Amino acid sequence: MADPARGFDRGEFLRRRDALQAGMAAAGMEALLLTTAADIFYVTGFLTRFWESPARPWFVVVPAKGDPVAVIPAIGVDLMRQSWISDIRCWDAPDPKDDGVSLLAATLGDLVPETGAIGTPMGLETQLRMALGDYMALTARLAPRRMVDATDVVQRVREIKSDAEVSKIRAACAVADRTFARVPEFAGPGRPLDAVFRDFQRVLLEEGADWVSYTAGGAGPGGYGDVISPATPQPLAVGDVLMLDTGAVRDGYFCDFDRNYAIGPVAPETAQAHASLYAATDLALEKLRPGMTAADAHRILCEGLRAHGATPGGGRLGHGLGVTLTEWPSFTPKDQTVLRAGMVLTLEPGAEIAPGRILVHEENIVLRDSGPELLSTRAPAELPVLE
Amino acid sequence: MADPARGFDRGEFLRRRDALQAGMAAAGMEALLLTTAADIFYVTGFLTRFWESPARPWFVVVPAKGDPVAVIPAIGVDLMRQSWISDIRCWDAPDPKDDGVSLLAATLGDLVPETGAIGTPMGLETQLRMALGDYMALTARLAPRRMVDATDVVQRVREIKSDAEVSKIRAACAVADRTFARVPEFAGPGRPLDAVFRDFQRVLLEEGADWVSYTAGGAGPGGYGDVISPATPQPLAVGDVLMLDTGAVRDGYFCDFDRNYAIGPVAPETAQAHASLYAATDLALEKLRPGMTAADAHRILCEGLRAHGATPGGGRLGHGLGVTLTEWPSFTPKDQTVLRAGMVLTLEPGAEIAPGRILVHEENIVLRDSGPELLSTRAPAELPVLE
Repeated sequence: MADPARGFDRGEFLRRRDALQAGMAAAGMEALLLTTAADIFYVTGFLTRFWESPARPWFVVVPAKGDPVAVIPAIGVDLMRQSWISDIRCWDAPDPKDDGVSLLAATLGDLVPETGAIGTPMGLETQLRMALGDYMALTARLAPRRMVDATDVVQRVREIKSDAEVSKIRAACAVADRTFARVPEFAGPGRPLDAVFRDFQRVLLEEGADWVSYTAGGAGPGGYGDVISPATPQPLAVGDVLMLDTGAVRDGYFCDFDRNYAIGPVAPETAQAHASLYAATDLALEKLRPGMTAADAHRILCEGLRAHGATPGGGRLGHGLGVTLTEWPSFTPKDQTVLRAGMVLTLEPGAEIAPGRILVHEENIVLRDSGPELLSTRAPAELPVLE
Repeated sequence: MADPARGFDRGEFLRRRDALQAGMAAAGMEALLLTTAADIFYVTGFLTRFWESPARPWFVVVPAKGDPVAVIPAIGVDLMRQSWISDIRCWDAPDPKDDGVSLLAATLGDLVPETGAIGTPMGLETQLRMALGDYMALTARLAPRRMVDATDVVQRVREIKSDAEVSKIRAACAVADRTFARVPEFAGPGRPLDAVFRDFQRVLLEEGADWVSYTAGGAGPGGYGDVISPATPQPLAVGDVLMLDTGAVRDGYFCDFDRNYAIGPVAPETAQAHASLYAATDLALEKLRPGMTAADAHRILCEGLRAHGATPGGGRLGHGLGVTLTEWPSFTPKDQTVLRAGMVLTLEPGAEIAPGRILVHEENIVLRDSGPELLSTRAPAELPVLE
């Protein structure tokens, strides 16, 4: 399958604008203030790695009607002009005296009556990407306008992926699929884990990642201790299970799934633990439907694990995926978010195989009315052996 | 020169703790609340790419006396236990009902009397990495304790790099040095810019980057339009100048410098513009001293550019560097931050060669009492030609 064309047509952005404005109207907001790379990319298509620099804040305002307004540092104007956004206001950032606050306050002040409400995401899995002091100064200048929580408005729109978005996530998954197929080229007994991590990133680039925002993994006898540590130079040893996990990015969209490899022959208990993860994933692939909650997904995965003698472990057992490595909801017993058709999700069962030692397994899906459709190529049912 | 050993000894962290606590005492703060990857890495050594996931907040509290306390999601406990921090408190995140707020409030409440002040960075080039609603709930629970701005406390400490830190930044620069030397392997007339960007990242990994958090660049006839856009498939053409810029990471520390290459023969006006950038950098390398301000550095670089007939362009002309791609101060006319010995800085003169078309040049230095010491290998005086 050919990779999808870069970017989106204007219709995609108009649909996003309309959906956000419908949510804003229902929630009684006259404007929406967005500050993060993900939200601004979603609304405008503005894609750059420059967010890595914490120096400058960036703002996009979605009014109740009409097109979004970009209020951004001058260094970003050329790139923003390539987007569909026509109202672009800029200042020379960073400015110790007034880092865009006056310009943003004027923009919001014009769009929102004094009795009005301005939404910005304040809830779970959100952040405000601007200086806290500037936010407080902004709210003081905008008073008596109220700042209100727009988490629900943004998340209910962003969580449903269009066909164009699904194609992009599928293309990112295909990059990782091709890379995982090449792991035997660079991993095996005696190879240091840090060299494996480095080669893993190299091959992701060779296979078409624009950049590699996230890699993680682990290796140890029969399983690994945690899944967020950087690699050490420790050589892979026979009996280890190696796990590699990646958030590779293509055209602004992430994949997020892992694969496990046995270093040398597989011990029976390792094979059994892996089989339980595989079966739990199969159960979720069979059972998951729109209308269930994130907590239901957690329950199904736990049932699948326990039915095969495994103890669920490793934290949440899946989550949303899209323009960031992880998105809401979270497959935990507490998350009551309703799953809907069009959500892109990870299925990530983990099994505790000994105290402080886990195995995890991950696939990426899009939820359809008829159930999950795989975006990653299903992992092999039996652990591949690297010798 | 051999690469420095990974991590830091305990003494390094004790010095950081003591320096922060001295600043806190001077500012009248009983505790310091840190939420960002950079600040938490700085205080604890906790290094992971897991920050890429926006799902979970992470907190470190520095008390007025004694060791820092980590208040973190359970998934990070194993890794935090490998640090020098012994007081680690955790919760199962993400939790829609209470995502660490109660645990953090209890921790701060125990450490800070009701009349006391809790600092957190709120100023220029800072962000609060937690849900805004949770921050508001936290401050309500902690009242009458006050939240105050700790930007100055954190920045005055972090901006002075120890010898161990300088060694790490030097090692990151050496990775980029070796990579830039290999650019002729993968860039030249007819090569698509996106393929060049991909190879650039691949070679950075081959040359020792742990990961590549930032690459940017541009190409165009005699110069480029902006320096933050992703690459297009446009092939390099004779007459273009290609610029590649990177923030490669090694052991948690960044380099940040660029290099320019002529595609085919160099036009006289291009050579002249490049010579002005080179001369401006030389002037700063000669003149910069502790006690000057960031605005002085900007002035010197502008003088160097104008003395050679160039028009300064491209925004700020340098900045700090260390555990993030860019740190304060910013070389602008407005930034009055005093430069001090031990600061690691970029010298980044830009010249506007036509409306909307610039050339930029960048080196990394550590400022010593005697002036700048280069951490990057000085660029060649004449533009290298790729044919």
